[in-house]
Amino acid sequence: MNQFSKEYLVVAQNASGRNMHVPLYRFSGHRPGPKVYIQSSIHGAEVQGNVVIYHLVQWLKQHSICGEVMLVPNCNPVGTNIKSGEYTLGRFDPVNGTNWNRGYLYDEDLVTSFAQTVLAEESVASIKQRFRAQIKKRLQQALDAPWGIGLAQQLNLKLQQLAFDADIVIDIHNGPVSTRHIYIPKYASAAATQFNIPHVIFIPNKFAGALDEATFCPWWSLAEYLKTNKGREIELGVEAFTLEMGSQEVINFTEGEYDARSILSYLNSKGCLADADVGAENIARYAVDLHHYKTLFTHQGGIVEYLAKPGEHVKQGQALARVLNVDALDTPDATETITAPCDLIPILHFPSASVLSGTQLYKCFTHYQQLT
Amino acid sequence: MNQFSKEYLVVAQNASGRNMHVPLYRFSGHRPGPKVYIQSSIHGAEVQGNVVIYHLVQWLKQHSICGEVMLVPNCNPVGTNIKSGEYTLGRFDPVNGTNWNRGYLYDEDLVTSFAQTVLAEESVASIKQRFRAQIKKRLQQALDAPWGIGLAQQLNLKLQQLAFDADIVIDIHNGPVSTRHIYIPKYASAAATQFNIPHVIFIPNKFAGALDEATFCPWWSLAEYLKTNKGREIELGVEAFTLEMGSQEVINFTEGEYDARSILSYLNSKGCLADADVGAENIARYAVDLHHYKTLFTHQGGIVEYLAKPGEHVKQGQALARVLNVDALDTPDATETITAPCDLIPILHFPSASVLSGTQLYKCFTHYQQLT
Amino acid sequence: MNQFSKEYLVVAQNASGRNMHVPLYRFSGHRPGPKVYIQSSIHGAEVQGNVVIYHLVQWLKQHSICGEVMLVPNCNPVGTNIKSGEYTLGRFDPVNGTNWNRGYLYDEDLVTSFAQTVLAEESVASIKQRFRAQIKKRLQQALDAPWGIGLAQQLNLKLQQLAFDADIVIDIHNGPVSTRHIYIPKYASAAATQFNIPHVIFIPNKFAGALDEATFCPWWSLAEYLKTNKGREIELGVEAFTLEMGSQEVINFTEGEYDARSILSYLNSKGCLADADVGAENIARYAVDLHHYKTLFTHQGGIVEYLAKPGEHVKQGQALARVLNVDALDTPDATETITAPCDLIPILHFPSASVLSGTQLYKCFTHYQQLT
Amino acid sequence: MNQFSKEYLVVAQNASGRNMHVPLYRFSGHRPGPKVYIQSSIHGAEVQGNVVIYHLVQWLKQHSICGEVMLVPNCNPVGTNIKSGEYTLGRFDPVNGTNWNRGYLYDEDLVTSFAQTVLAEESVASIKQRFRAQIKKRLQQALDAPWGIGLAQQLNLKLQQLAFDADIVIDIHNGPVSTRHIYIPKYASAAATQFNIPHVIFIPNKFAGALDEATFCPWWSLAEYLKTNKGREIELGVEAFTLEMGSQEVINFTEGEYDARSILSYLNSKGCLADADVGAENIARYAVDLHHYKTLFTHQGGIVEYLAKPGEHVKQGQALARVLNVDALDTPDATETITAPCDLIPILHFPSASVLSGTQLYKCFTHYQQLT
Repeated sequence: MNQFSKEYLVVAQNASGRNMHVPLYRFSGHRPGPKVYIQSSIHGAEVQGNVVIYHLVQWLKQHSICGEVMLVPNCNPVGTNIKSGEYTLGRFDPVNGTNWNRGYLYDEDLVTSFAQTVLAEESVASIKQRFRAQIKKRLQQALDAPWGIGLAQQLNLKLQQLAFDADIVIDIHNGPVSTRHIYIPKYASAAATQFNIPHVIFIPNKFAGALDEATFCPWWSLAEYLKTNKGREIELGVEAFTLEMGSQEVINFTEGEYDARSILSYLNSKGCLADADVGAENIARYAVDLHHYKTLFTHQGGIVEYLAKPGEHVKQGQALARVLNVDALDTPDATETITAPCDLIPILHFPSASVLSGTQLYKCFTHYQQLT
Repeated sequence: MNQFSKEYLVVAQNASGRNMHVPLYRFSGHRPGPKVYIQSSIHGAEVQGNVVIYHLVQWLKQHSICGEVMLVPNCNPVGTNIKSGEYTLGRFDPVNGTNWNRGYLYDEDLVTSFAQTVLAEESVASIKQRFRAQIKKRLQQALDAPWGIGLAQQLNLKLQQLAFDADIVIDIHNGPVSTRHIYIPKYASAAATQFNIPHVIFIPNKFAGALDEATFCPWWSLAEYLKTNKGREIELGVEAFTLEMGSQEVINFTEGEYDARSILSYLNSKGCLADADVGAENIARYAVDLHHYKTLFTHQGGIVEYLAKPGEHVKQGQALARVLNVDALDTPDATETITAPCDLIPILHFPSASVLSGTQLYKCFTHYQQLT
Repeated sequence: MNQFSKEYLVVAQNASGRNMHVPLYRFSGHRPGPKVYIQSSIHGAEVQGNVVIYHLVQWLKQHSICGEVMLVPNCNPVGTNIKSGEYTLGRFDPVNGTNWNRGYLYDEDLVTSFAQTVLAEESVASIKQRFRAQIKKRLQQALDAPWGIGLAQQLNLKLQQLAFDADIVIDIHNGPVSTRHIYIPKYASAAATQFNIPHVIFIPNKFAGALDEATFCPWWSLAEYLKTNKGREIELGVEAFTLEMGSQEVINFTEGEYDARSILSYLNSKGCLADADVGAENIARYAVDLHHYKTLFTHQGGIVEYLAKPGEHVKQGQALARVLNVDALDTPDATETITAPCDLIPILHFPSASVLSGTQLYKCFTHYQQLT
Repeated sequence: MNQFSKEYLVVAQNASGRNMHVPLYRFSGHRPGPKVYIQSSIHGAEVQGNVVIYHLVQWLKQHSICGEVMLVPNCNPVGTNIKSGEYTLGRFDPVNGTNWNRGYLYDEDLVTSFAQTVLAEESVASIKQRFRAQIKKRLQQALDAPWGIGLAQQLNLKLQQLAFDADIVIDIHNGPVSTRHIYIPKYASAAATQFNIPHVIFIPNKFAGALDEATFCPWWSLAEYLKTNKGREIELGVEAFTLEMGSQEVINFTEGEYDARSILSYLNSKGCLADADVGAENIARYAVDLHHYKTLFTHQGGIVEYLAKPGEHVKQGQALARVLNVDALDTPDATETITAPCDLIPILHFPSASVLSGTQLYKCFTHYQQLT
């Protein structure tokens, strides 16, 4: 079977002066294969990924793999433990509002200057190895900045150091109240039908701070540069994804087993599993390009019933939500209906009935198409 | 039809120095009858009651009543508007942790000294009128305290001033993730079968700070005193209830209509409605005495799947919840099952999967019996 | 010199499923003497006590004591680590608002039933030993409650188990913006001139949930009972105090050294130190009975300048604070002055300029007198 | 004297469905002159600016001006009213962490396309008038986005609509614990000696979301474009500043009067005041370019005494702070000293003694120079 080890990495220190660490589970197969990195709960309230990793660990204890799989559940020991009321305030650093998922590093200049050092005859293996070394050196420099570095970035970079070693990176999240969906870089669109996830967002080569982008942007840009400037088309073989495994603040072991098989199916298609019989399911899948994934904001405050459920197909003009105005119960303005501006699939909605104006009420697929 | 008026009462001032007010809807029938006071959302995240009041207002606009109905939706303008993350931090004053529902006033000594003034020949109407005047004077004194008074208490007392005029007081709440249930003072146990609420908690004559208690304790104690010390048994005709209308952070208009009819059914049984044909439904109802309504606390921290749903009948030893220990995914301690200590009905559970040790995981009916 | 040991006690588990522990420093002298328990930071933002304990530890490493001193700095590992914005949300459990300093246990019935078992000839040493055993058994029962126990109470009881072994208990706190003051049980009023703390509050034998009360109430009640019912006057030799060492959210090493000497001076007067030359300073000390320690609440919201500084002597009618009303800058109502209702010493004030109505603006000594 | 009006602008709706508005005080002189816009408290805990505006209003009621002055105190009715513990959680939207001061709009493409429409003979007045109209149209488009817009951006854009009419924009903030300092766009460096503010940061033409940048970047870029591409050097006469008026969470009326005169001094130098005798004070002023204004992050968690006070001149190697490690009180690691990496002036420090690793401990002037 596989070799297994568990270790703990220090990623921060709390106000008691105590180390905060993340667990790293590592399985190595006896046959060569891709290196895989999977983490969950960088946003502290998004906990289903931990159950997914639980099921992956159970599977990996009993089935041989090719290459290596690293799993880091509960990868944010700070965000996991900030309660405010009964819920977990896990999306941003409570001190300064910094999103825990926006501090990964991507240095475009480094990619360009590295690309210029690639010789015509250099093997892909050598390019990859040298590139990884350069990026990881850059990450270490950022961590060693003489005046220091912010908490969220510190945490992000320590995880990125692990992840950048991998060929496949999977970052498991949850939406607020959400159906399952996945972010896939456009160049890896073939992966869309390997995961059992019904909603797919194709994203461009643009860095906005998240781990998937911090992983694929360098490789994507490097490949583009080599193609454009050196006329060399190479397959660097790195893919990275953000998986949104349903709603935050809940876990479900049964669904987690299905979610784990969804990931195993993809890994199998990439040659990570040895003789496993795990394939994609035959489900309907819908996809949009990122700019068609739209946020509907409220223009009013009030109390909301969410009429359209995540995953439903909603026609233009159909009711999405009904807002109660508590000061006008005796008038026709007592309730207001918010309707769909166009045909759409609501993917997620705000998790509280109480909203101010300017609240992200729904995020929706528009101009979506079915994948085949 | 009924007479209708709407007004706004100032209950606090915010940090901008602006008044914060609550809406008061008042319907008066042309025939005499009991005075009813209904409020909702003293805990800011418990919003379904506002929908119930919405439906009550629609009904009251079209049907005649006997007596008067006062409705105060969204009765806590502070707690309704404290967001912390996406949820509403509505249970306590964020400055000092004071529960918004524990600052009502009950002065046992006042009851005793008043009781001593009741003459043998005094009519019930006179007793009630004098008693109300005394209590309301006492409330005003508390509000006028020369060194001032805390915010939560200020809010509570201003609402209590309205409520203490009423013969029937209904305070609508929600549990975290909860089935519908109701708190009924033991002496008014007949009301249990008038509401369409499947779970009933009978409470004793003991003040713990809430509005229902602040309403019935004085009358109950007064009646007891007159009985014990003056040998006079009188029916003062005041009842007060806390209704828990499902889960916090969500509203549902369809369920709200059912909830409104549940209240109308009770009011009809009390003679508040004129010629209305609203009666209690034939549903199963289960009841416990307060000391059999028990809280199950976690002894461990971790991530929890709530296996037992509110309202289910669970046998001793049956699984209630499954806790994931993210540091032990490779060991048999990866998950732990929490089982029912006895036969029980879970009424509500904690609304987040992430718990520390000492969390109120479930509140349960034990030693319950079916009402007939 | 003294014997020294350090250990860690588990007091809770966090949402990552990890143990949270408190450090316990223990110094034992070679000569017999009282047992002393000192803790700090049960309220997480009140951190100066940790510096005081730091200085005490340095002293105890170099000077012999009689008896034993236990020190538990940072005794609340949960509350210390809840940030909300830049400040520490350390006063109450962020899940439910429970004050971290109100869950200690005092069982009056247990005291009474124990007192009845005291025989006329029983030695004080035996009474103390048996009483301690009973109380600690009771604490353990509470911790072992079959349905569990809340987080704050869990933490409190584990600390109380340590503290109840001691003859002298010192619980170090801070006020919001505050001058140094101390709570002293009336029967131990002689201690007032042993500490170098200028403001003293004498408290009655009444339990309100704090550690000092949970320590002295049982002994005090026991002594009273024996006196009243058995005609036996005994000196049980237990004293407990809450020390408020200035303002929360700041530490100061220089002041901490002075604070440490203040405690050493008291301990010396109790025979805890061997041949130490530490005595009380000759400072002005003012004292009140608890009911003369009054809270001034705002009746308006707005932005406040605190004109009277903690520790100043203020005359009736003198300005305490000036409130800005941002909506009325062009009118005479732009500012409002809050004046002293009587002669007073402000001991602490609210730490933020922004207040709602019903805010605890100042806590003040009234009808105070100078100790001599 | 001046003409005066007061109005209220709706900028949001809260969860009660009620409008939230900001007060706008407007003074118009009888003589022509620049248009001035001054706001305060976009970060809710930074309240001293309201006192400054209070004093400005008192002055403007008694002295004639040339042109117009608009004042918007307490410009963030949401952020002002979020309490979390005793402090105000005013820096970011508590729902999603969005900084209230980063949602102003700057559209570089619009500047370029507008610049191309400027004719050689067009007057500066005409250019300014047309440019303002274009930008304000763009702001309105953003506010009218068919899918809506986030709360912070909504608030920011409504304020920006007012501000973009002005020639002079002053946005008053506070640091955490801070000495007074000011951000000045490089091209307006002459203003540095008109304000009575001892610490000056010169900033480049780079947009990072704040109001001062959103004001000056368009004009600066327009001027640059015209110079570079059309060979036309024009003085557009617009200046914008962020003033940091000391520490958050406190107000001081006496200091506010000095702060108000500081602004009046600058306005007088710009011809806004009619015959006023208000000039700059002769104080030492130190300045840095933005990239020399550096943040020192902690690499450890613990409890901190801030030894270096804001405004002090600190030599390389000198102690800035001392960190207590509560788990190591018996060892030499009990405290750690953080020293200055180079000669510097600490301008502000973190406002809480309790820090995690990665906390912004100090922000410092390095390579500063004295202005003359």
